[in-house]
Amino acid sequence: MVAEKLPKAVKYEKDELIFLDQTKLPLELIYEKQETLEQVYISIKQLKVRGAPAIGIAGAFGLLISVKNNIDKPLDEFLKNLKSNGEYLISSRPTAVNLSWAVNRMLKVAENAKVVKSKELFQILEQEAINIYNEDKKICHSIGDFGEELIYEGMGILTHCNAGALAVSELGTALAPIYKAMDKGKKFKVYADETRPLLQGARLTSYELFSAGADVTLLCDNMAAYAMSKGLINMVIVGCDRVAANGDTANKIGTMNVAILAKHFNIPFYVACPSSTYDNMTITGKDIVIEERDKKEVTHFSSCQTALENVNVLNPAFDVTPNELITGFITEYGIIKPPFNINLEKILHNKETK
Amino acid sequence: MVAEKLPKAVKYEKDELIFLDQTKLPLELIYEKQETLEQVYISIKQLKVRGAPAIGIAGAFGLLISVKNNIDKPLDEFLKNLKSNGEYLISSRPTAVNLSWAVNRMLKVAENAKVVKSKELFQILEQEAINIYNEDKKICHSIGDFGEELIYEGMGILTHCNAGALAVSELGTALAPIYKAMDKGKKFKVYADETRPLLQGARLTSYELFSAGADVTLLCDNMAAYAMSKGLINMVIVGCDRVAANGDTANKIGTMNVAILAKHFNIPFYVACPSSTYDNMTITGKDIVIEERDKKEVTHFSSCQTALENVNVLNPAFDVTPNELITGFITEYGIIKPPFNINLEKILHNKETK
Repeated sequence: MVAEKLPKAVKYEKDELIFLDQTKLPLELIYEKQETLEQVYISIKQLKVRGAPAIGIAGAFGLLISVKNNIDKPLDEFLKNLKSNGEYLISSRPTAVNLSWAVNRMLKVAENAKVVKSKELFQILEQEAINIYNEDKKICHSIGDFGEELIYEGMGILTHCNAGALAVSELGTALAPIYKAMDKGKKFKVYADETRPLLQGARLTSYELFSAGADVTLLCDNMAAYAMSKGLINMVIVGCDRVAANGDTANKIGTMNVAILAKHFNIPFYVACPSSTYDNMTITGKDIVIEERDKKEVTHFSSCQTALENVNVLNPAFDVTPNELITGFITEYGIIKPPFNINLEKILHNKETK
Repeated sequence: MVAEKLPKAVKYEKDELIFLDQTKLPLELIYEKQETLEQVYISIKQLKVRGAPAIGIAGAFGLLISVKNNIDKPLDEFLKNLKSNGEYLISSRPTAVNLSWAVNRMLKVAENAKVVKSKELFQILEQEAINIYNEDKKICHSIGDFGEELIYEGMGILTHCNAGALAVSELGTALAPIYKAMDKGKKFKVYADETRPLLQGARLTSYELFSAGADVTLLCDNMAAYAMSKGLINMVIVGCDRVAANGDTANKIGTMNVAILAKHFNIPFYVACPSSTYDNMTITGKDIVIEERDKKEVTHFSSCQTALENVNVLNPAFDVTPNELITGFITEYGIIKPPFNINLEKILHNKETK
């Protein structure tokens, strides 16, 4: 199984919590044991763990280990510490929805638990963190199984940014179909956009695909049209941050570029995502506010300066791909095709409320 | 005049040849006096001087100063040195068409000159190098004047790579209309793609526009669709390496991406070029061979490594934009509109053979 060859963002083994320090990738593979609340806080803040689902999982297990030494204390003291630790952890990345979601889910379980001893509550919380991990893993495998059917022998697949194993529990979203197809013995090529400004494609995606034994080729973002014009790309799969009710999709900056190029060359463009990224309260992509990030990300990479520091810079964190450029959404409930304003609601909401 | 504020790639003043070391830009502005054949050879080889016209000009003046100390020698010895120096200089960048063109033009003038003394020949050669410089300058100003008419108050112009003052004698090709419009007092914005992998947009274009006092904003290549979708871009102007008989245009990798995006958003896409880049022996873009460059340019960002060194890499030096994506060519003879297979030949060849 390819899954066994993949790096793991978060591991919880024999009561030990371990994070892979992604800021050091791909030059160094350093797994760090997390022993204190403060250490987990810093790991999340410094982006050692990144990717929405992985941050949620890291937060749940991080909260757990933060109260590991409190299990012999009275229950009310245990609960009080748990709450304040949870609030502190959430503040490490206040805009990361999955982090507050996972931490609050843990806190709610604690509040509702009918136990008398701290040790019992700790065990319930441990199981809840494991559940959060396993639910994400199940979703990723399911996305992988549905998406895998789109992959055929000899094809070329382009991806953007990192929506792989390093961003989730296991396999990834956009990369899950690729790993599943490899498990089935299919031979095909994967092309990874380097994804400026933070180079997640170069640093993370090409690294994890290479580690898994995939036939991966790295290219600069502006080489996609060339690759498509030469017939190298037969499908695009990307992840996403948020899907509006009409199917407009916010994802890492540069995704819309790829979608427009794919349309021009008549190449199918798929978005792989768990149903949780579907937000029917956001009517269209126009309702999504786009954060501008630090200009230094564009004038520099790492310690290398490439432009004058005082030049104006455009640095949107993501863009919104209009629904008409999207061939389908690969979700844990299957592949959703247009009309998205009807089918997203039908498939994702009916399932969710079952 | 904006031209006076611009950095100069090559200067020949008071018998002294000076190159701007572009490898140090934008962090250091170092003008280096060129005193020997070997020094000029290294400057060209190490890309201290780059940009097709600038390399030609550098070659012509470089050849001149290489025989400066021979003017008291017999004419046949002077000529012999001139020829061997010329051959050596051409080998510094054997694929640079303008370099061999300029050096051979100098050698031909020397062969045909009716002189008896080396000193006289030196003066003829000096005038020829100045002519090469001035002809390029005239072309750039002419491209600027024609292109300037396309620029209106309040608009946004996107450019890719560097086809500016640093690549030519003065003003540039793609940037010449911008400088001319600034001279006329027009207010508008310029957006510069950073242009991976070698970052000419970040290092050179945003630098020279900023130096000239332009309202310039740097963006990563994959942010162009975002900028266009927000209505920031009203026109694209790029330079080019070669134009085929049907108007298909080879230019720096990423140009085709921008052209496809511009088409999607109904934004005019112009190519600024001297008539010398029109090559009617190349029937279509399919006949243009695309060089693949060193993979290290992609696995590294400046001196910082960003990807595994053993991962596969795609690194085409340029791409070919199909003629149907091009609104017009801004040349020294005017703006050429479709049908390009008729109008390029009519305007450029008739003028050339006048």
